[in-house]
Order: sequence, then structure tokens, then C-alpha cells
Amino acid sequence: MSGEDKLIARHFKPIAKHPGALGLTDDAALLSPPPGQALVVTADAIVGGVHFFVDDPADAVARKALRVNLSDLAAKGASPAGFVLTLALPRGFDGGWLTAFARGLGADAKKYGCPLLGGDTVHTPGPVTISITAFGTLPTGTMVMRCGARVGDHVIVTGTIGDAALGLRLRKARAFAKRWKLGSAMRRHLLARYLVPEPRNALAEVLRRHASAAMDVSDGLAGDLGKLCRASGAGAEIEVARVPLSKAARAALAAEPKAIETVLTGGDDFEVVATIPPAALDVFLTAARAVGVPVAAIGRVTAGKAARFLGPDRRQLRFARASFSHF
Amino acid sequence: MSGEDKLIARHFKPIAKHPGALGLTDDAALLSPPPGQALVVTADAIVGGVHFFVDDPADAVARKALRVNLSDLAAKGASPAGFVLTLALPRGFDGGWLTAFARGLGADAKKYGCPLLGGDTVHTPGPVTISITAFGTLPTGTMVMRCGARVGDHVIVTGTIGDAALGLRLRKARAFAKRWKLGSAMRRHLLARYLVPEPRNALAEVLRRHASAAMDVSDGLAGDLGKLCRASGAGAEIEVARVPLSKAARAALAAEPKAIETVLTGGDDFEVVATIPPAALDVFLTAARAVGVPVAAIGRVTAGKAARFLGPDRRQLRFARASFSHF
Repeated sequence: MSGEDKLIARHFKPIAKHPGALGLTDDAALLSPPPGQALVVTADAIVGGVHFFVDDPADAVARKALRVNLSDLAAKGASPAGFVLTLALPRGFDGGWLTAFARGLGADAKKYGCPLLGGDTVHTPGPVTISITAFGTLPTGTMVMRCGARVGDHVIVTGTIGDAALGLRLRKARAFAKRWKLGSAMRRHLLARYLVPEPRNALAEVLRRHASAAMDVSDGLAGDLGKLCRASGAGAEIEVARVPLSKAARAALAAEPKAIETVLTGGDDFEVVATIPPAALDVFLTAARAVGVPVAAIGRVTAGKAARFLGPDRRQLRFARASFSHF
Repeated sequence: MSGEDKLIARHFKPIAKHPGALGLTDDAALLSPPPGQALVVTADAIVGGVHFFVDDPADAVARKALRVNLSDLAAKGASPAGFVLTLALPRGFDGGWLTAFARGLGADAKKYGCPLLGGDTVHTPGPVTISITAFGTLPTGTMVMRCGARVGDHVIVTGTIGDAALGLRLRKARAFAKRWKLGSAMRRHLLARYLVPEPRNALAEVLRRHASAAMDVSDGLAGDLGKLCRASGAGAEIEVARVPLSKAARAALAAEPKAIETVLTGGDDFEVVATIPPAALDVFLTAARAVGVPVAAIGRVTAGKAARFLGPDRRQLRFARASFSHF
């Protein structure tokens, strides 16, 4: 066996429990949706020093890499079916790092019912780079698109917004903990939200049944809702006071009101923003509660062209940039 | 629109002609095999400075990234159906580079009937890193596995072996052109074979009909045939004199007989090695000729455990390492 084959057999074969993975001993995997189901495909890459810190725990890095993809499946209403991984490792990487990486990946593959199907492991002179293509299934014709929002629909978001972006600022400069008057639990909360997202796969079926449009919030609520509006040919009015915030985020905003821009545009939330027709709102809220996912209605879809965020005086907030973009 | 959205709309949307790509305006793509067909999934990444030279033409880099995946689909007997791309670009990358990259990618997507379905574009502090997950379809239950070789089967390879590995040596040290007494056409041939592989997708259906096992030769014929043998629980005896070589490779071997090790273990061939039951050999050879893919029978599957390469005196060649491995 080559070194690469040994590495795969040792670290990744135990995660590859799907029969179509063929034990990672062939060149390709087999994956077919059951009759009446469509396959949903999404791909996201994360890069050391860009999407995570190179000294983040390896198991957390693995979880983040998989979960950013699971978040897309959740927003589209799809059930996870499996994933392929390409992993670029720096030369001389630490074997213990890979053990921890595979442990985190395996734990989440099990937790979300999303087994490893195949992939590729290569060296890089750059930082650790992890690319995952994830697959989900749903009844044919039921994928929740970005483009279905209609005027009058309610805009909802899951969980709380802005924690990860504040957590990133805190990670870069621990002094913010003092400035924002955060207790240790609040500090840990924000850091954890940046380190490992909590994708909303539990809500997938509820979204499929009731949402007119949805996407995951990865690049900031303001920018991502803007994308959903553009795809739908509509606008939105959001009451900032209704955007759900954690205790820690509220503390940070009390100390630094301007940080609302970080909260609304900072990215890495991996929550879901969706639009719900008025007639479906109550049943949606009840169904979300039943699956244990907190959701909040934060505004409405309008006839305009942009997502507008309104302060308590109904004055529109203006942002230097609405959304995180690499380019 | 964010910079990333503009980049995608400008460079990649024109390649995303599959209806399931949704014009690259959603978070995920839809892909389902037709009834009776299975989906084959493969993923390979290439990294600047590792799998290609950072000053290789961008269109050639794109073609290589897609073709190394197409080669896996070919060996499995699958017809290309589409691919997703994650592209990590260094900061300050040249816009012209991306234009050429997208042009090469689009040309091959069209040539091989393999449209872009989706993906992700990110920045990296490291070199350009391209990860592709490619999809193929074939009638359910007909994927050509690594594990089907039976004692007595003929071992065949497509095209010529060793050109890319010699081309890489030449690319690293142009002095080999003189040492190997290569004319300019031979020099260009070897360099081109390293730069952009020629995957054998034309042979996919013929392999599906007649091969008992197959894989693509990406890490060196000796090592890859060894993997096929291990998966099949068999051995193989290859007559080195029957391994098909280009004129350029024959010239290099005449000048440097020891380069046979480079030829047989060097990798990057992206040809197919397959095993064909004796009763099917003639019809296989005829069918391969009909689709214009040169194939050569180079030996037999044996009851042993290893792939043995025999010189003209039937003495076994020994290699320092049988196969390229990153680890």
C-alpha cells in the first residue's frame, strides 16, 4: 500500500459507511437518489488562515468544513445523503492533527447521517484546504429555491444572528471581551459560534413544506437576504429590533451600538433566512417549534428591489458593505 | 452584486448550461440520473506547484483539473454528466488568468458533455488550488470496479505509458531533451502529455461491456495495476516489451534504459488499465478500434498477489517505489 492508501484506510475508511463508498477502495463512488427523489448538490471550500485559524482544533475544522455544506442542504429542504472530501495538507503535517480531523468528521457524518463517499488527499505548499461536495435528497420538484419570495411573505430567520462575526472579532482581539463587558459564558458562546456552526438540518422538511424561498446565511444577513430578494425580483423590509440576538450579542451592542453592522453583515452565521406566505406563518412557527429550531419573523417581502434594514425610528440603516465577499 | 457574484456571473455562468445548475444563482444544484441509471461520483484536486506549474497556461490548468476527473469516469464506464468546482485563488490573482481558466474549462465542458453545476470560489494565501467533483451516469449495476479481475484475464492499457512522467522530468530540466536525443516534435509531445491529459471517455461504453476490472493510470502503471490486483485478490504478469510507448519515450529509453522506472511508475498517464476475459479480448479490441482508442494487451492476470513486470529475459524488474504517492 502507498502512504496515501494507508492514510485513507486508517483515517477515512471508518467514516465511509455508505455502501456506495465501496470502502474507499475504488476510483469512484455510487450514489443514486431513491425513486421519486432528486439529488441536491452543494460545494464549499474552507482554507486555513481565511475561513478558520490554522491553530483551531482539527476536529472543529473538520466539523466546520462539513457543516457549512450541511447548512446549504438544510436551507434547500434536503436531507443529507453523503459527501466527498478533497483535503490538501501541508508537507510535514502532524499525524495527530489528521487523527483529530477524522474524528471530528466522523462524529458529524454520524450525527447528521451524511457518510463519506470518496475523495482525494493531496499535499500543498499552502495552508490546509478542505473542499467538500455534499449531497442531499428530497422529493423531486420540492427544492426550496432563492427565487420564490412573493410580496407580503414574512421573512424569518433561525437561531440568532451576528454571533459568529462578533466571535471572529473577539478571536482576533481578545480585548473586545472587556470592551463589550462579556462574562466568560458569553465570550465562550461567541467564540464557539465562529468555530463550529450549528446547521439547521432539523428544519429542512418544515422549510420544504412551508417556505416560498430560503437560503443559508453565510455571508451576512443583509447581503444574503439581498441575494434572495434579487433572485425573487422583490425587496424586503426588516425591523432590526426583531432580528434575534444572543445575550452576548446584546451585551456587545449595548457597549458598542455600531457593532450592529458586524451583526447584520459579518457572515458565518449558518442560520437560515426564509420567506413564508402569510397564510402559512402560524403552521410554520408551530412546526419549527416542534422540531426544536428557534425561528423569528423579522419583516416582510416588499415590492421594492432591495433588502432594507429599518432602525427603531424606521430610518434605514446604511452599511459600508452589505455582505462578506472574497473578491 | 458582490465581487464574488460578479466573478461567477462573468466567468462561470456561461459554462453552467445544465438546467440543474440553476444558472449558478442558487445555493445548490439539482442532479438526478435518469431512471435505470446510477450516478458515479469522483473527486480530485490539483494544487499549483504540486500537480502543475504555477506558470502553466491557465486554460491548460483548467483542462487538467477537469480531465483528471473525466479519466476516472472513463475507467469506470460512466458517461460524463456534470461537475462542481471549488477554486481557491491567491489574493491579487490576475484577472486575465481567470478569463483563460474559464475559457479552457468551458471548452472541455463542451467537448466532453460535462457542464458546470455549481461550486465555490475562495481566496487562499497558498497557491491556486482546484477541486472538482465530477458526476457520470451508467446503467445501474454496470460500473466497472477495480475488484473484478480474474486469473487468466488479459491486462490491457490504452494509449502510451510514461510520456507524462518523462514530460515532467523534461519540464524540470530541459537538458533531458539533449540527453535523450529528442527532436522538437518529441519534446513537445512529452511536455504536452504532462500539461494536459487525454482522458479515454470514448472507451467508457466498451469497458462497461467487456472489462472485468478497470482503473485509470494516474499514479504510475506499476502501482495502479498493483492496486487493481489487490482489490481483485489476484496478481499480474506484465511483459514490459509489450507496454505501448511513444516514439519519444522509446528515444528516451534508448538513451537512458534506466528511465523505464520513470515510465512504469511515474504517474500522470491518465490512460486506462483494464482486465478483459480471454473470450472477450477479440471483440474488445475490435470495439476499441471502432471508437478510435488505441489499446494494447500487455500481460495476464495470475494467481499471485502482486503485479510483476518482466523484462525480455523474463526477469522481474524491481522499482524503488511502484507508484507516486503524496504521503
